[in-house]
Amino acid sequence: MSSAYQVRDPAFEQRVRASFARQGFMRFLGAELTRVAPGECEIELPYREELSQQHGYFHGGVIATLADNAGGYAGFSLMAAGDSVLTVEFKVNILAPGHGERLVGRAHVKRAGRTLTVAQTDILAVTDGRETLCATALQTLMRLADRSDGPVG
Amino acid sequence: MSSAYQVRDPAFEQRVRASFARQGFMRFLGAELTRVAPGECEIELPYREELSQQHGYFHGGVIATLADNAGGYAGFSLMAAGDSVLTVEFKVNILAPGHGERLVGRAHVKRAGRTLTVAQTDILAVTDGRETLCATALQTLMRLADRSDGPVG
Amino acid sequence: MSSAYQVRDPAFEQRVRASFARQGFMRFLGAELTRVAPGECEIELPYREELSQQHGYFHGGVIATLADNAGGYAGFSLMAAGDSVLTVEFKVNILAPGHGERLVGRAHVKRAGRTLTVAQTDILAVTDGRETLCATALQTLMRLADRSDGPVG
Amino acid sequence: MSSAYQVRDPAFEQRVRASFARQGFMRFLGAELTRVAPGECEIELPYREELSQQHGYFHGGVIATLADNAGGYAGFSLMAAGDSVLTVEFKVNILAPGHGERLVGRAHVKRAGRTLTVAQTDILAVTDGRETLCATALQTLMRLADRSDGPVG
Repeated sequence: MSSAYQVRDPAFEQRVRASFARQGFMRFLGAELTRVAPGECEIELPYREELSQQHGYFHGGVIATLADNAGGYAGFSLMAAGDSVLTVEFKVNILAPGHGERLVGRAHVKRAGRTLTVAQTDILAVTDGRETLCATALQTLMRLADRSDGPVG
Repeated sequence: MSSAYQVRDPAFEQRVRASFARQGFMRFLGAELTRVAPGECEIELPYREELSQQHGYFHGGVIATLADNAGGYAGFSLMAAGDSVLTVEFKVNILAPGHGERLVGRAHVKRAGRTLTVAQTDILAVTDGRETLCATALQTLMRLADRSDGPVG
Repeated sequence: MSSAYQVRDPAFEQRVRASFARQGFMRFLGAELTRVAPGECEIELPYREELSQQHGYFHGGVIATLADNAGGYAGFSLMAAGDSVLTVEFKVNILAPGHGERLVGRAHVKRAGRTLTVAQTDILAVTDGRETLCATALQTLMRLADRSDGPVG
Repeated sequence: MSSAYQVRDPAFEQRVRASFARQGFMRFLGAELTRVAPGECEIELPYREELSQQHGYFHGGVIATLADNAGGYAGFSLMAAGDSVLTVEFKVNILAPGHGERLVGRAHVKRAGRTLTVAQTDILAVTDGRETLCATALQTLMRLADRSDGPVG
């Protein structure tokens, strides 16, 4: 699918990684950006008790966070050097409990428009290298042209 | 609107608070359960840098987490003593940047069915006591009858 | 809530009604635009067998159509004279069977931005003047500036 | 992907086709059920002016109807002989104008659970045999055990 994507910024990976590194919440969770390709992104997050809901599994909010971020950076990879990205909205369906050693969010862009981009993300729970589909998300992103992605002000 | 809700468990508030207290992720974020009423729930979360996205605002995943949890416990408040609750899916629209001293998630149940419950949640960013509508969410919950909400296993 | 809306085009009602009248699908269904106010819209649709699903109730697609259109025109009412409106996405939760003499879609704008507008719509099933909440929807709209809403080409 | 689906009713195709045939709305629109396989469904709909929005394209409600129905019958194909199916909710993202000779809704099941099923549907606009991705949808379905799918009452 990647071959169909138009790359506007050859330094897209560096730009995505720099933005990810500025997110205090990703450091706090312990998430790692494991793959960036044009229109694609993968983020991993090891389990720990601090990320749990009441039954001890990954919290739904953690699952949603991975969906939001993997999809957002899949879209951001296709934007131009001076652009910034915003999440307009997303929907996530929880398909199985977030039960595993780590979560993986795997996103790809379904359509990249001038203003709006739509991304689809699967969230997998991984144990002993075996992946279980835990959630799936559909997301709308907005490109803000000519606004630095860096800290405001 | 509350008057229309049927309360199946008079100890609903204690049950909701006990479940909330078991969520490691809520403690980790620093979230507080500020209000529980039949079919309603409010959760607050003070800002800190660890909860930020790349521009220094509350991360979209944090906003989604508040939506998921406030809606989930609004629904759980109407369930029976032995029930457990699962998020089936939710959608969140980000309406304004998560810019404020704290976030408030304010949820109410739109329909409580035998198996499925639908909740609507507004997420507000608060600064100097002034509330700005930051996001709105629509969520489907599932009741699991006769399964303890406590830790599995 | 209306008082908070900014009206950019004093002839908004005429503009909304003209656009509605151009929709072949509304005529085909037999839908009527019963109310337009700034940021608000109501559409009604009497039952007939042609609109049914397999159990004889209003089809989910008919319910979704009312949600899409009532929300779309609530948003369009706040746009400028030369603007056009597009549905970016919407989600609809079915809360009860579409069982009634007619359906009413009642929409209001949650946030009207420069480019994007978010609308919330309730769909009611009405029998003998009694309304039952049948569905609720959350929708993202896009404003296309300086493009006529009329037929393309 | 089909190989992973469990078929509970060998007569699934006949059951899906009989339910589709009972939907007055499908006849009214002129939709045709072009393919049924375990966990998969395809529905086609030729263009006519009666299905248009204000610019002359397929109406968003028609697109949503195809998404709802193709996903619903993809899920229904995996249910048991005595089951009925309900749409709980769905979200549809419009990716391109519904501009073509016909629309095709192509659905597959992402997860089939005991009570809930999640389906994903792409809606394509077709002209001269060329398909354009027009919309994508994510849907939650509910299985009603031991209730006939036939007319109520």
